[in-house]
Amino acid sequence: MKVAVLGAGSWGTALAKVLAENDHEVYLWGRNASQIQQINETKINQKYLPDTVLPESIMATTDLATALHEARMILIVVPTSAIRQTMENLNDLLVNESQPIIVHATKGLEQETKLRISEVMEEVLKPELYEALAVLSGPSHAEEVARQDITTVTVASHSLTAAQIVQDVFMNRYFRVYTNTDVIGVELGAALKNIIALGAGLIEELGYGDNAKAALITRGLAEISRLGVRMGADPLTFIGLSGVGDLIVTCTSPHSRNWRAGRLIAQGLAREEIFENVQMVVEGILTCKAAYELAKEHEIEMPITEALYHRLYENASVAESLEALMMREGKQEVSLQKHLEQE
Amino acid sequence: MKVAVLGAGSWGTALAKVLAENDHEVYLWGRNASQIQQINETKINQKYLPDTVLPESIMATTDLATALHEARMILIVVPTSAIRQTMENLNDLLVNESQPIIVHATKGLEQETKLRISEVMEEVLKPELYEALAVLSGPSHAEEVARQDITTVTVASHSLTAAQIVQDVFMNRYFRVYTNTDVIGVELGAALKNIIALGAGLIEELGYGDNAKAALITRGLAEISRLGVRMGADPLTFIGLSGVGDLIVTCTSPHSRNWRAGRLIAQGLAREEIFENVQMVVEGILTCKAAYELAKEHEIEMPITEALYHRLYENASVAESLEALMMREGKQEVSLQKHLEQE
Repeated sequence: MKVAVLGAGSWGTALAKVLAENDHEVYLWGRNASQIQQINETKINQKYLPDTVLPESIMATTDLATALHEARMILIVVPTSAIRQTMENLNDLLVNESQPIIVHATKGLEQETKLRISEVMEEVLKPELYEALAVLSGPSHAEEVARQDITTVTVASHSLTAAQIVQDVFMNRYFRVYTNTDVIGVELGAALKNIIALGAGLIEELGYGDNAKAALITRGLAEISRLGVRMGADPLTFIGLSGVGDLIVTCTSPHSRNWRAGRLIAQGLAREEIFENVQMVVEGILTCKAAYELAKEHEIEMPITEALYHRLYENASVAESLEALMMREGKQEVSLQKHLEQE
Repeated sequence: MKVAVLGAGSWGTALAKVLAENDHEVYLWGRNASQIQQINETKINQKYLPDTVLPESIMATTDLATALHEARMILIVVPTSAIRQTMENLNDLLVNESQPIIVHATKGLEQETKLRISEVMEEVLKPELYEALAVLSGPSHAEEVARQDITTVTVASHSLTAAQIVQDVFMNRYFRVYTNTDVIGVELGAALKNIIALGAGLIEELGYGDNAKAALITRGLAEISRLGVRMGADPLTFIGLSGVGDLIVTCTSPHSRNWRAGRLIAQGLAREEIFENVQMVVEGILTCKAAYELAKEHEIEMPITEALYHRLYENASVAESLEALMMREGKQEVSLQKHLEQE
């Protein structure tokens, strides 16, 4: 099957490798000409996945039309901020007959509209141009997938048939794919866990221990679930791979970009300084603003998100944010149950 | 308030320190005379908490009657295998008028009977001798609590009033206590997570990465919850501090004794060799057998528990166990939902 992978960052590149190893015809599209040339010449994505030699068969290209031409599946792995423009490009380039399944693996919320990724896709894409939409998410550092370390992910689609096709295309010995139909829950879990990872990095940098980190992750899971359920997700999705699984890996591993950004927050860096320092998109910082506004709109308590929002967007001190992060609870256990009962 | 802490291991000693810092009159009982003498003379528990100087006010004793005399609260922190005998001793030594609240912080299932700790306590203790039973559990390495790192735990009791009294006795700036009434869920989460920690240590030792570990923890949470719900627990307890919180800390930290034991399993050591090597009780290895039998009895799938049982009690190879640990799932996401729907 011809698959077009749009986005040649670390995750897009690692997923392109999985697909090529599964004997698909893989086109990897990126915008940066010298990077794409380097991938074709050396089979290494030096900036984003430097330790990995890619399969010979991957064709990297800067020409979107070439990548899309007769592709049966399109995998979108561009940053959240580029989703809308990418969909407009698909509208221009796809032809009615092709009807591919379009899968995304982008973890965020559109900042201006606060929409989930698939909502932006549905809003922009002409419906006659695609078969179905799906989202791929789960605990998955790109570096480990590139090393063929065992990894499990969820593919969610409103169409179980589409999810199963995506599953078949990706599944192999080391990349295990499970299907799900709760698109809302999978997308919100993916987007919101990056905020909690900022908090986990922050308290790590300030010297807190494993007990505090586990408490923060647990409370993070509760606040993600609260907002998610209010927005229509199945609460049980949050205890699956794309919920607690992804949350754990993002909050406990130095591979995680958002976790590293959290350490920089603790060092007192402002939003722009962090972006400059990390040199990649830190989705959690952008998602934090959208989630903060959604929480206000839906009247949901999200103390971790609020504390980070105040630090990142309203210049609260690190000390104030920490106080809010660690100490704000009441005396009964903050559980999903309690908050579901409030609904 | 006079509090008797029975069990001078690392957790009992750390909790005795919390209580003494909260200005309670703390008697710490242990069986080993030279250890108790050392604690009284040096204020250090050299074997179990060597880096911590204990408050002057803690009185260590080998005389159980002295520890219990007029205690308003009794905290039980002995190994699971010693719970029954300890309760028989309480029957002999407590007097009708005292009626203390008895709290335990022991994480296991009695091996022969497969009973939870509070079930053993209720079975043995004369009801007129105590006010109420409670369990204290949550993500809490003793070493971190001893350093006054922020830690959050759950106290569960069928009596919310009793839980609130225990909360007040323990709560301070760094030790945050939340109440809950789901005793079954809190005790099962505490006991069963040690089994998953064995699995996490095993795959870590064999070189698996963070993606695989997050997947294992997520599947572990699902299998713990399945058995727990069948046994009467509230499913939502498993996403709280005493469920996923404790699971995370036990599975991701080298402080964890069960995690370290899992690494020894991967090195091919047999059960007895592990006990010898670790020189402390490894509750997960004992709980594994009870949980395996409970899973059979209740017809619940627990693939991680089963894989470890076969290795530890039926001499399956490490390779066979690993295969079962990592690869056994079907194609739809293994979620609590699916298994609750099967109920």
